[in-house]
Amino acid sequence: MTHREDPMEMELELVRRLARAAETKLVLLVLDGVGDLRTAARPRTPLEIARTPNLDRLAAGGSTGRILPVDWGITPGSGPGHLALFGYDPRDPVADIGRGVLEALGADLDVRAGDVAARGNFATADADGNLTDRRAGRIPTEECRRLVDRLRSVVPGGLGAEVTVEAGEGHRFVLLLRGPGLSTALADTDPQSLGVPPLDVEPQEAAAEETAALVRRLVVVFEKALADEPRANRVLLRGFSTLPHLPTFPELYRMRCGAFAGYPLYRGVASACGMEKVPCDKTFDRILDRVAEAWDRFDYLFLHVKQTDAAGEDGNFDAKVEVLEAVDRELPRLLELGPDVLAVTGDHSTPVPMKSHSWHPVPVLLSAETAFVDAVERFDEESATAGHLGTFPSRKLLALMLAHGGRLAKYGA
Amino acid sequence: MTHREDPMEMELELVRRLARAAETKLVLLVLDGVGDLRTAARPRTPLEIARTPNLDRLAAGGSTGRILPVDWGITPGSGPGHLALFGYDPRDPVADIGRGVLEALGADLDVRAGDVAARGNFATADADGNLTDRRAGRIPTEECRRLVDRLRSVVPGGLGAEVTVEAGEGHRFVLLLRGPGLSTALADTDPQSLGVPPLDVEPQEAAAEETAALVRRLVVVFEKALADEPRANRVLLRGFSTLPHLPTFPELYRMRCGAFAGYPLYRGVASACGMEKVPCDKTFDRILDRVAEAWDRFDYLFLHVKQTDAAGEDGNFDAKVEVLEAVDRELPRLLELGPDVLAVTGDHSTPVPMKSHSWHPVPVLLSAETAFVDAVERFDEESATAGHLGTFPSRKLLALMLAHGGRLAKYGA
Repeated sequence: MTHREDPMEMELELVRRLARAAETKLVLLVLDGVGDLRTAARPRTPLEIARTPNLDRLAAGGSTGRILPVDWGITPGSGPGHLALFGYDPRDPVADIGRGVLEALGADLDVRAGDVAARGNFATADADGNLTDRRAGRIPTEECRRLVDRLRSVVPGGLGAEVTVEAGEGHRFVLLLRGPGLSTALADTDPQSLGVPPLDVEPQEAAAEETAALVRRLVVVFEKALADEPRANRVLLRGFSTLPHLPTFPELYRMRCGAFAGYPLYRGVASACGMEKVPCDKTFDRILDRVAEAWDRFDYLFLHVKQTDAAGEDGNFDAKVEVLEAVDRELPRLLELGPDVLAVTGDHSTPVPMKSHSWHPVPVLLSAETAFVDAVERFDEESATAGHLGTFPSRKLLALMLAHGGRLAKYGA
Repeated sequence: MTHREDPMEMELELVRRLARAAETKLVLLVLDGVGDLRTAARPRTPLEIARTPNLDRLAAGGSTGRILPVDWGITPGSGPGHLALFGYDPRDPVADIGRGVLEALGADLDVRAGDVAARGNFATADADGNLTDRRAGRIPTEECRRLVDRLRSVVPGGLGAEVTVEAGEGHRFVLLLRGPGLSTALADTDPQSLGVPPLDVEPQEAAAEETAALVRRLVVVFEKALADEPRANRVLLRGFSTLPHLPTFPELYRMRCGAFAGYPLYRGVASACGMEKVPCDKTFDRILDRVAEAWDRFDYLFLHVKQTDAAGEDGNFDAKVEVLEAVDRELPRLLELGPDVLAVTGDHSTPVPMKSHSWHPVPVLLSAETAFVDAVERFDEESATAGHLGTFPSRKLLALMLAHGGRLAKYGA
């Protein structure tokens, strides 16, 4: 027998090949980090405690199940978590969103194909040039903004590339380069240890030498401009990366797709998949305002609620319950718009007891006329275990949504 | 992206390597399209409503679960649905059964390796030769037979290939060519639109030129013979294809295999996998007559019941219930023969509310002395969700049947 193309690719190719146009509207509502843990100390999860009559009604009248974001035991970051929900295999190298690009998307920068982004840290070095603090004493965001303004003012002309510097939270900033022939093959300059100077900007292949020279020159002028700063007198760069070249939703599935998210990172990841970014305020009710306005323009709408994840990260059980109840209260406004297929799930679990993302399966509910009405009557982790959809990889959700929306032709005669 | 070893092939190779002879008899009973939907309007499926004491007894005394024919969200045709039940990955290009071959198998033609088959339509063209009806006004099957007789009578000699023409339903017919060096690399001649003439027979590669010339010559004599027909004065050909070159059951698993089906398409697909075709009448009781006669000759028996699918396609809930009850009534006759392993399932779901094949998982029951007696006591969609076998790809059923029949050796020491 013979070798053949990667079966993951084949999956995507199969769905692409079967995709057909339809009048149906598909909505993916991501409650970031919604999945949680039952523990001995807390035998009920936020989803079980929260009063969510609308989510429960959808679960009772549709199909439920659980998704695995990447693979058993793997805890995804936001990038892989969402790429999987969008149908890509996040383990595939082409779906790799580098740290620099993720940071740039999170800063709402307009990242285009070929742009090179890096994550920057302000850091502190002593008189000998050796690092004493890789985060410059975690300076406040306000100070970061002031420093970034200074960096911008010293960017030299004639570099052959457009340079954008954008402040992030605390000691973080983003460097974005746009121009012909840029390479991402640069090693991190962060030595990941103290008592040594930052590393030089090293090209990892011959084709990256020009980009390395450019970045080296920038680092020199930046550090000159920061020389009199007491804390932030060095810059460390890492995660040089470019937008992944993903086959996009319109190409793959012939749908007009909109990303409705209050936080730029999420609409940024979606835009890398070919969705139109629709900036929103951060709460679900305000997101729904934008959805209602734009309803006619899209076939597939991705709605992102961040606060479930934030509450999990904070270890704040009550806050997670409150967000879930707030989402549930607003849900009728979404249902009134009449989505043909509505999937509600998370990109991963963020259990309150762990205060972090985790690998635990995430409950999913799927509401559609062609959904099997299973016996599950509530939307929560434990109930979903018995659902008709079973437990499946997140990346299969997209094909299920297309199928339930009549957007996939039969395979073979 | 890179190429890598095909894991699906590896699966098949593993099972082949472990397969060992045994005295056990394995029966696969396919209730075509058996899976159905619970909806708000119909909260119980035909399997739940039907009185099926024998199937339920088997479910209670064995293992249950659910199979996914191709992948989440993918709706299979009959070819892929059955190939998966026979252990092949229907997404694999080597398992691709083309439309022409499927049509030829459905007409009960003796399709052999290397034969090229195409699906034909009779069509209508106006005085200028432009198509006005791609289905010749959907002529009755009887008229089709008369026209096919005429085509047969004008097949010229000296073509270098044996030509078979067989009538199908309505305006459909099959063209089958047998001879050395035939190619399937011919484009469809059906332009898929009106107001234009049929397309020429175009070879898609140099090696197909001779076959193209042969088919072109046939089309000319066929259309000359049809010149005075008021409706059916053109032939359109598509889906030129040949039998897939599959590793066969006897090769792979050292079993003598028989296909018992009332409809030629299904025994045809099975014969492409190396099973012996046993023509049967169309109802389950008559199929069982053949099974009883041939019981000693086979190790693996594939039994196909079509009427469940037909009832689903017709949207006829009561008919589906009736077929299930009729099958259940006859089942003791099969059990009396003493199969060591009996699997009952479908090649896909054909939900009554959808009147079509669908992607929903299909319940499966597995009865054998070594089957785990799970808590499920009925054979239906919802009960099977809790079954011991879980939800798994259809193509794994064959290995499970072999294992339960003591036909797979231990893997590794």
